[in-house]
Amino acid sequence: MEKILVVDYGSQYTQLLAKRIRDLGVFSEVVQFDDNISFNDVKGIVLSGGPDSVYDIDAPDISDEILNAELPILGICYGMQLMAKKLGGKVEQRGIAEYGKTKITITDQSLLFKKIPSTFNVWMSHKDMVTQVPEKFKITSLTSNNIISSFENETENIYGIQFHPEVRHTEFGIDILKNFVHGICGLKGSWTLMDFVENKIKEIRDTIGDKKAIIALSGGVDSSVAAVLTHRAIGNNLKAIFVNHGLLRMNEVEEVESTFRDYMGLNLTTVDAQERFLSKLKRVTDPEQKRKIIGEEFIRVFEQEAKKEKDCEYLIQGTIYSDVIESAKSGKKTFKIKSHHNVGGLPEDIDLKIVEPLKELFKDEVRSVGEILGLPREILYRHPFPGPGLAIRIIGEINEEKLTILKKVDSIFIKTLKETGWYDKVWQAFAVLIPVKTVGITGDKRSYGYVAALRSVDSVEGMTADWSKIPFEILDVVSSRITNEVEEITRVVYDISSKPPATIEWE
Amino acid sequence: MEKILVVDYGSQYTQLLAKRIRDLGVFSEVVQFDDNISFNDVKGIVLSGGPDSVYDIDAPDISDEILNAELPILGICYGMQLMAKKLGGKVEQRGIAEYGKTKITITDQSLLFKKIPSTFNVWMSHKDMVTQVPEKFKITSLTSNNIISSFENETENIYGIQFHPEVRHTEFGIDILKNFVHGICGLKGSWTLMDFVENKIKEIRDTIGDKKAIIALSGGVDSSVAAVLTHRAIGNNLKAIFVNHGLLRMNEVEEVESTFRDYMGLNLTTVDAQERFLSKLKRVTDPEQKRKIIGEEFIRVFEQEAKKEKDCEYLIQGTIYSDVIESAKSGKKTFKIKSHHNVGGLPEDIDLKIVEPLKELFKDEVRSVGEILGLPREILYRHPFPGPGLAIRIIGEINEEKLTILKKVDSIFIKTLKETGWYDKVWQAFAVLIPVKTVGITGDKRSYGYVAALRSVDSVEGMTADWSKIPFEILDVVSSRITNEVEEITRVVYDISSKPPATIEWE
Repeated sequence: MEKILVVDYGSQYTQLLAKRIRDLGVFSEVVQFDDNISFNDVKGIVLSGGPDSVYDIDAPDISDEILNAELPILGICYGMQLMAKKLGGKVEQRGIAEYGKTKITITDQSLLFKKIPSTFNVWMSHKDMVTQVPEKFKITSLTSNNIISSFENETENIYGIQFHPEVRHTEFGIDILKNFVHGICGLKGSWTLMDFVENKIKEIRDTIGDKKAIIALSGGVDSSVAAVLTHRAIGNNLKAIFVNHGLLRMNEVEEVESTFRDYMGLNLTTVDAQERFLSKLKRVTDPEQKRKIIGEEFIRVFEQEAKKEKDCEYLIQGTIYSDVIESAKSGKKTFKIKSHHNVGGLPEDIDLKIVEPLKELFKDEVRSVGEILGLPREILYRHPFPGPGLAIRIIGEINEEKLTILKKVDSIFIKTLKETGWYDKVWQAFAVLIPVKTVGITGDKRSYGYVAALRSVDSVEGMTADWSKIPFEILDVVSSRITNEVEEITRVVYDISSKPPATIEWE
Repeated sequence: MEKILVVDYGSQYTQLLAKRIRDLGVFSEVVQFDDNISFNDVKGIVLSGGPDSVYDIDAPDISDEILNAELPILGICYGMQLMAKKLGGKVEQRGIAEYGKTKITITDQSLLFKKIPSTFNVWMSHKDMVTQVPEKFKITSLTSNNIISSFENETENIYGIQFHPEVRHTEFGIDILKNFVHGICGLKGSWTLMDFVENKIKEIRDTIGDKKAIIALSGGVDSSVAAVLTHRAIGNNLKAIFVNHGLLRMNEVEEVESTFRDYMGLNLTTVDAQERFLSKLKRVTDPEQKRKIIGEEFIRVFEQEAKKEKDCEYLIQGTIYSDVIESAKSGKKTFKIKSHHNVGGLPEDIDLKIVEPLKELFKDEVRSVGEILGLPREILYRHPFPGPGLAIRIIGEINEEKLTILKKVDSIFIKTLKETGWYDKVWQAFAVLIPVKTVGITGDKRSYGYVAALRSVDSVEGMTADWSKIPFEILDVVSSRITNEVEEITRVVYDISSKPPATIEWE
């Protein structure tokens, strides 16, 4: 498959850049600047921006392999400065840092600026700047401060731009990327997710053959799409296991069973491990310990189920592209699978080969694949739900009584958000049980009840988050419904903390 | 002092009725229907509405003393029905209950409707209705349903109206009350708070003479105004005692001292009892026990201080009119002083005579008196603060660390409300410390901190309350300031519970 490589220098926009290229119908892949790169099928290279200065002692470098690959290169911001320095130009820090919107003017013809007006607004964020271009390079645009905003050597197919074309604030940014990808790199832009699904089903069939595979279905988007995709390829040779650890939301078990067994036709086994988990969690109050116990117990349950399957050779995992990039970024240069959907460190003696059918896809692409496969909207667009489930949404010790209360509260909150159209507007919403007792009035006397906290956040990828500005009238309805319908709750609060400094989940 | 008696039959508007009459410059006093009434200085009687039906077995009655007092009487709603029945008319329940706005038409001349249009909207809420007026009475208006909305016997000076003139929704309601009070009762309306202050200072001076008096100053509106008023009367013979129990807000001790000792010139003693209270509260988690310990300890501290004063014969208390009415209403027919400002049951052996200089005044009148006396706005318009202070705003056990955290959080919240003009818009606002630890991010690592809850409510008299709809931008600023400036807090929530079912305070 023909593709563009995006070399990551640590910009917060690297994934966005890769995504924009895919949206142009060209498959793209993110690699770290010091990865060992295979140039098979690569038709062009984009160097991302990054937080460093090229003069920093540990400044990330560009490998000779890239420079000598004879492929078109587009350097953005740090990527541009790095090439300028590397090829004999000059980069300086002049104290006139530019942040935000700036107007640039095209000063010389360029394939990169084909069919684009001669003056337009771009978005930049830099302190360093290229003050002299390398030999045989020409300046193609300047900012209103007369700073070099792009240069190139058309013969060698090397282009540099100081601004970020991937950001919406840059006018004609998509057109510039299109000029590079379609024009300069000569890619047709025919990659589609339909092709992806067809190819992937074939690929899975080729890999697994008539052997058996197993998947831990969590009910979340990624494992659901991975399961259904694999089921299309190998049918009932895929066994899906859904572990009911008792920390799930109201009616969740029934919903997962009806969707995947009845509607999608999967070979699904639900393991009722509620008592097992609850007894292990008795008297445990420390969040980290809760997570650890649940994670370990999950593996043990899954392992037992897996062993029941004779001839099972493959384990399917719902790892997606951002997991892969994050794992790679986290400092370990060896490829590390992120502990995912609770199937973190599977014990050695299971000895299953891992298949990750979604590992090239971004989250929204995973959703589109789900749509192509006919998965219901409620599964594809549901909010993220943590592996340890409600256990980390009850502060302190967990017991059945508290779980029952929290399930009711959470279901009222989510139901109201769906009724009012707010569920799809927020990134994630849920309820938390604070086990402190505060005063309320029931009839004419004082009563003590728990506090329910509502959490809802807006986010793009979950790394940072704002608390959602859900209208007061809706919060009011949710609050009244909860105190009316759940007698153990006398008080409702709304979390107004952003991430950072708070996290999205409470524990 | 000439006055109007308002006889209370349990209407929620009784106090409002008394207030409206005072606003017409006529002193008014609320009495319960079965009180022993003194008619000294009384120039007219208003019978309030009430929830009962005149045919209920225990229906509150009207005494012959009132009927025979030869004073003008105005019966409102239940008061009208009661007179109709008592004097030989007919009251029935016809199933055409009227609630809310109704149009009435004047059908006969009446002093009550002098200078009022012949048709106007009134506000009613009744099931029973007068269907036949007593002998020698005439109907003076009808509703659009042809129900009798007023009757009278001008000779005997007895008037009845089915609607509520004290409610804003009744057009010309104030004019009708004015026609009764100024016109029919012949009162000039010259009562002012200026007169009140002058007379009261004289009265206190006459009562206390050159003896000494003591007051427990809490920094709240009522005790502040009572202290300053008494100080005007007897100067430094009033000793004000301010008990610092360590459960006060940030800088509160300094503010009280500078206001009352330095600015108002009071003879003020601050008792530093912080350690005493904190050691008594050690390991106490039950809210009711906290309140009890603080109340009892307060009395003990105050008692010790009082005993140091030789020849002290009087105790000044900031009881106000609504306290008096509430105490009287609470079922005890004997007059009972409401446990106020922590000086509830003073021990017998102190043997001080109690003086309550504000007991005839409503809250807003107390504030006006404070303004006349030159008390600063910050004291007069500050939000209510509970006797047990911050002790009931830290859930569970109290210690110095938590008090320090809560003081910082509370002061940030209040400061921001003042800066944005919201402090004066809400009834009461404060912070609560929830001692559960939740996750946050500090730098790049997980950290555990407390949760701060913000509470702000809109209310008229504190009996019911809505959570305040403080704009999101302001809540956002408060939340960031708190997590930035108070490192022990990683998460901020906003209380979205109304009273009922929650209470305003958390414990």
